[in-house]
Amino acid sequence: MRSTVGWQVEGPSSTLRRMPLERRDLRPDDLAVRVDYCGVCHTDLHAVSARDGGGGRPLVPGHEFTGVVTETGPAVTRFTVGDPVAVGNIVDSCGECAMCRAGQENFCHGFPTLTYDGIDRHDGSATLGGYSREYVVRERFAYALPAGLDPAAAAPLLCAGITVWEPLRALGVGPGTRVAVAGLGGLGHLAVKIAVALGAHTSVISRSPGKADDARRLGAHGLIVSTDPEQMADARDRFDVVIDTISSPHDLGPYLRLVAMDGTLSHLGDLGPVTVETMDLLVGRKKLSSAGSGGRPETAAMLDFCAEHGITADIELLPSARVNEVLDRLRRNDVRYRFVLDMSDLD
Amino acid sequence: MRSTVGWQVEGPSSTLRRMPLERRDLRPDDLAVRVDYCGVCHTDLHAVSARDGGGGRPLVPGHEFTGVVTETGPAVTRFTVGDPVAVGNIVDSCGECAMCRAGQENFCHGFPTLTYDGIDRHDGSATLGGYSREYVVRERFAYALPAGLDPAAAAPLLCAGITVWEPLRALGVGPGTRVAVAGLGGLGHLAVKIAVALGAHTSVISRSPGKADDARRLGAHGLIVSTDPEQMADARDRFDVVIDTISSPHDLGPYLRLVAMDGTLSHLGDLGPVTVETMDLLVGRKKLSSAGSGGRPETAAMLDFCAEHGITADIELLPSARVNEVLDRLRRNDVRYRFVLDMSDLD
Repeated sequence: MRSTVGWQVEGPSSTLRRMPLERRDLRPDDLAVRVDYCGVCHTDLHAVSARDGGGGRPLVPGHEFTGVVTETGPAVTRFTVGDPVAVGNIVDSCGECAMCRAGQENFCHGFPTLTYDGIDRHDGSATLGGYSREYVVRERFAYALPAGLDPAAAAPLLCAGITVWEPLRALGVGPGTRVAVAGLGGLGHLAVKIAVALGAHTSVISRSPGKADDARRLGAHGLIVSTDPEQMADARDRFDVVIDTISSPHDLGPYLRLVAMDGTLSHLGDLGPVTVETMDLLVGRKKLSSAGSGGRPETAAMLDFCAEHGITADIELLPSARVNEVLDRLRRNDVRYRFVLDMSDLD
Repeated sequence: MRSTVGWQVEGPSSTLRRMPLERRDLRPDDLAVRVDYCGVCHTDLHAVSARDGGGGRPLVPGHEFTGVVTETGPAVTRFTVGDPVAVGNIVDSCGECAMCRAGQENFCHGFPTLTYDGIDRHDGSATLGGYSREYVVRERFAYALPAGLDPAAAAPLLCAGITVWEPLRALGVGPGTRVAVAGLGGLGHLAVKIAVALGAHTSVISRSPGKADDARRLGAHGLIVSTDPEQMADARDRFDVVIDTISSPHDLGPYLRLVAMDGTLSHLGDLGPVTVETMDLLVGRKKLSSAGSGGRPETAAMLDFCAEHGITADIELLPSARVNEVLDRLRRNDVRYRFVLDMSDLD
């Protein structure tokens, strides 16, 4: 086994502590990656909270990170030592089902191996995430980090970025598409940047009128204040695509009503059961969809697109030792727009 | 006023009685239509049951009928006396909103005027439906019945037909599309015929293994028995489009799971609030939509398509005097596949 160090939830609290960690010895197609920067995703917060009270597998969060290859297994062909790489929230899949064959490993029928809090499909060990100085990953699930992308600000692309990229691409967003992004947070601000770069006429829907300046700075053409009934009524039936990035349970009706004839409301992530009024779908032949994560080909395409258009996340970069403060602030939505941990303090 | 006769719900029962009815005098753009054949829709049953106990406006059901023009207002340009015509479930709309301008009068922001149990938008009177010998309709909402279509078997096209045509067309069903139709009733059997004629590889999903022969006779390529877990598992992720024609409340999950990557489940009619598991949408980027009725251009296109492909409903034609028996049998789903009332017994 290899030794490293990372931030692990320990005991019956939701506090992370610096702990020595073990990584597997490299398999033939593995890379060892020195983790330099790891983004902090809402999922990390949920996972940590779910461990409150203790029990279960060891938990080291982190599933959007960038770093440098430090060692390669003998069968590795695409990377060499020193290469900048990025890793997202999936590190393996069955590779044989229809979804894997279609490059949608995120929908693997055998369930993809998650970057943390998953089970390695070869040795049955618990996967430990990127809040650590080293990660060992199958070559197939590492991505070359394109030159020109700041590695700290690029880290959130590997989860937040691909999560918004997938529905925008699947729904054919391009020049002339009218897109609205509900919620201007980690996902939302990247959805705006990418939709704008794809050529869409892009609006933000937010509870906060104060986000108008930010929306404009990100390239959006307007802001709709969701608590203003008049603005919401004016925006009725106006958008081909509404990307709903709001992570807490909420009524989808007001957002469906903004969708234009034959358009789609896509909400991101697993909201559990959602209820919609048939008439909100029927009148205007609207569609409801859901998206989360992406497969390997689209992740690589998203990174290339972001490099070409100079898109990275707006981040607040902090030493990894401040991880508990970071999670507290994320719990209060006190971030514009994504925290990234600098792992160099673990040396 | 004009006098005619029809079948009206009377008093505190859900029994229809033969009654004299009044129709408005022709406005300049009105047609008088001798109703020859009127289909019996599930909506009629709901409307009649809702009147149980009495009260409310007078109710004469019927919103899919064919007949012959007997008189025209002075401004009528598209029809002359003797023309065969068809009328569906909408007889007027505001004509000015974005939906009307787009030819989607069924989604009129001012709400379309329904063929029965609606309110005429000019004189405020209650609309009385096609279970009668005469109907007066605005020219704009009458359709030329194409030659070659049997007028009795064509009547159900005006509601059941357009209701299945709309989602099939909106979802781009054509050669090579894999379509499944859930529920083989009045809507379902027309969905199968039209999907097959559009070139789709079409399957039926039914609780009844006994419908396999009928499904094949209608042109379907196979039947999936929804109560057989193995057949449902085999069909997972296999259909680009699933048209769900089941009118009673039911779990959409099993049907969503049959939808292929990037495909759509479209359920027909107003089911009220529906609940789906996010993960049933998310895994495979599936879409949920809903459809009901259609606008003028698509109704005309559907009639032309059906004439070209020789598509009408499979009907059981009965004298209108047997309407109460017909509604009883429909309540028990004892019909293959649509009842049509012959109105000539009202003379």
